[in-house]
Amino acid sequence: MTRVTLLAGGVGGAKMAEGLAALPGVDLTVIGNVADDDEFHGLWVSPDIDTLSYSLAGLIDRRQGWGVADEGHRALEVLARLGQDCWMSLGDRDFGLHIWRTMRRMRGDRPSVIAADAARALGVGPRIVLPTDDRVQTRVRTDAGWLSFQEYFVREKCAPEIRELRLDGIEAARPTPEALAAIAEAEAIVIAPSNPLVSIAPILAVPGIAEGLRQARVPRIAVSPFIAGKVVKGPADRMMAALGLRADAVGVAERYAGLADVLVIDDLDSAHSAAIAARGLHPECRPILMRDQGDKQRLAAEVLEIARMLAAREEVA
Amino acid sequence: MTRVTLLAGGVGGAKMAEGLAALPGVDLTVIGNVADDDEFHGLWVSPDIDTLSYSLAGLIDRRQGWGVADEGHRALEVLARLGQDCWMSLGDRDFGLHIWRTMRRMRGDRPSVIAADAARALGVGPRIVLPTDDRVQTRVRTDAGWLSFQEYFVREKCAPEIRELRLDGIEAARPTPEALAAIAEAEAIVIAPSNPLVSIAPILAVPGIAEGLRQARVPRIAVSPFIAGKVVKGPADRMMAALGLRADAVGVAERYAGLADVLVIDDLDSAHSAAIAARGLHPECRPILMRDQGDKQRLAAEVLEIARMLAAREEVA
Repeated sequence: MTRVTLLAGGVGGAKMAEGLAALPGVDLTVIGNVADDDEFHGLWVSPDIDTLSYSLAGLIDRRQGWGVADEGHRALEVLARLGQDCWMSLGDRDFGLHIWRTMRRMRGDRPSVIAADAARALGVGPRIVLPTDDRVQTRVRTDAGWLSFQEYFVREKCAPEIRELRLDGIEAARPTPEALAAIAEAEAIVIAPSNPLVSIAPILAVPGIAEGLRQARVPRIAVSPFIAGKVVKGPADRMMAALGLRADAVGVAERYAGLADVLVIDDLDSAHSAAIAARGLHPECRPILMRDQGDKQRLAAEVLEIARMLAAREEVA
Repeated sequence: MTRVTLLAGGVGGAKMAEGLAALPGVDLTVIGNVADDDEFHGLWVSPDIDTLSYSLAGLIDRRQGWGVADEGHRALEVLARLGQDCWMSLGDRDFGLHIWRTMRRMRGDRPSVIAADAARALGVGPRIVLPTDDRVQTRVRTDAGWLSFQEYFVREKCAPEIRELRLDGIEAARPTPEALAAIAEAEAIVIAPSNPLVSIAPILAVPGIAEGLRQARVPRIAVSPFIAGKVVKGPADRMMAALGLRADAVGVAERYAGLADVLVIDDLDSAHSAAIAARGLHPECRPILMRDQGDKQRLAAEVLEIARMLAAREEVA
């Protein structure tokens, strides 16, 4: 068994997790993103972690990529009737999990333990680990002022131009022992093709996590979220451009310099190979689009193969 | 307009409220029962008040007499999967209300205001008033120990023999100004055909409420929950018998002596008339079974007619 630790957020992160989870010989731990967590109707909602759990449990709504299949919206209908602002689509099954999570948080249970218990109860095989049990939240400054991530992402549908990103609570955040152990004990570390700014950065920003990656003496492989210069889903490209970063695979390489050895990019982005190498990451070109379970497993197998190659090279050296 | 104040709990109470609400010329305030409130999955559930609101809003599931029509149970399915004990059937629409109520309680809003706002938002015409904003809970001693009311009523399906009833928190409970005003300003007071021990007693036990009824100089009319010596629904007859009370309309008269002027009993219980009169209540025999909306309105009209008769008699005297 190869102990693989994946840093993952969003739908791209969940897909990469599904691919790795399906490979024989992989003992997978996923460090998820909690910085898009938010409170709705008094309940604590953890969209990225739930997308991971629902995906790995096979409960995900495959059509939309998030939420649970066979979902209803009766609770939300009543909340709307009671005057609540209901732009965040929360299904009835989803509410079951949010109710339970909030109840356990109120009791003082650690968010990490709650997430792990939920994953187990829903039938998730891999471990799901939180980077921190503290409250860390992405805030987005637009011309209309500061928004929470969900306000920007869901309510405003990513329409406003982004001026600044901030991670509220990051200075005081302490890493979980589970996250530090997952990095220290990994035989390979993978950074999923997630949004580098709002999915991966909030994990890396928790004190101790990026340091753990820097010190790791195992293959560290990042997968680019770009294909032919555009992201498959979400606002990563627009966000990077708006913040003055290169909005392409080279920009991703700049983010992960010192944290990853290899950047897996799409064959269609192979022209960036030299620029990526110049940022200190070894580029590997593969078809990286994940349309179905076959694609996910194929990409995961490629990533693992690259990790094995790297490990063998280390041993030779 | 006649200002009518109804003390009501359970399904019988909700039916009486529906009947009175449908009468022209009635300005109805219902004082509900909060002593079967309980916490489930960290949410505050108020079954009697919700049955009132759902009934008066026309949202009630007519088949079962409680809960909302067109209900789903997806949230509860997930809670069960997460290991929660789910004997209390809570629907998805129902959860919407419980989530909202809990959120507002957490914010420090008065339970009375929350109940009134919920009723208004759901489309309830009459005012719904809580007897107290404090936590008062019926506890039931059985051979298996003390149970909450919902544990006894729902989980144990009223099977265990009752040894004792207790109202936790009643000593410290303060009446709401709304409940005291509803009694002081009523032109007629009606006690619904609810369970005298677990629906009406917890209202009357709040300091100030029974006193208000005793001092009221307006017609006070109670409706018996018994028909032909048995209750239509629920465990009132078995409860009364188990606690050594007379389990019939006479037992009801004993409970309401000094608090009501008239006890409306079913034609089938007319043999009890003399015994009821001996307890200081004037018996009035009517058909009191409420099978449909027609029955509810007919009984409400009879009750109102009796109130007008009483008021006229007072004026003559």
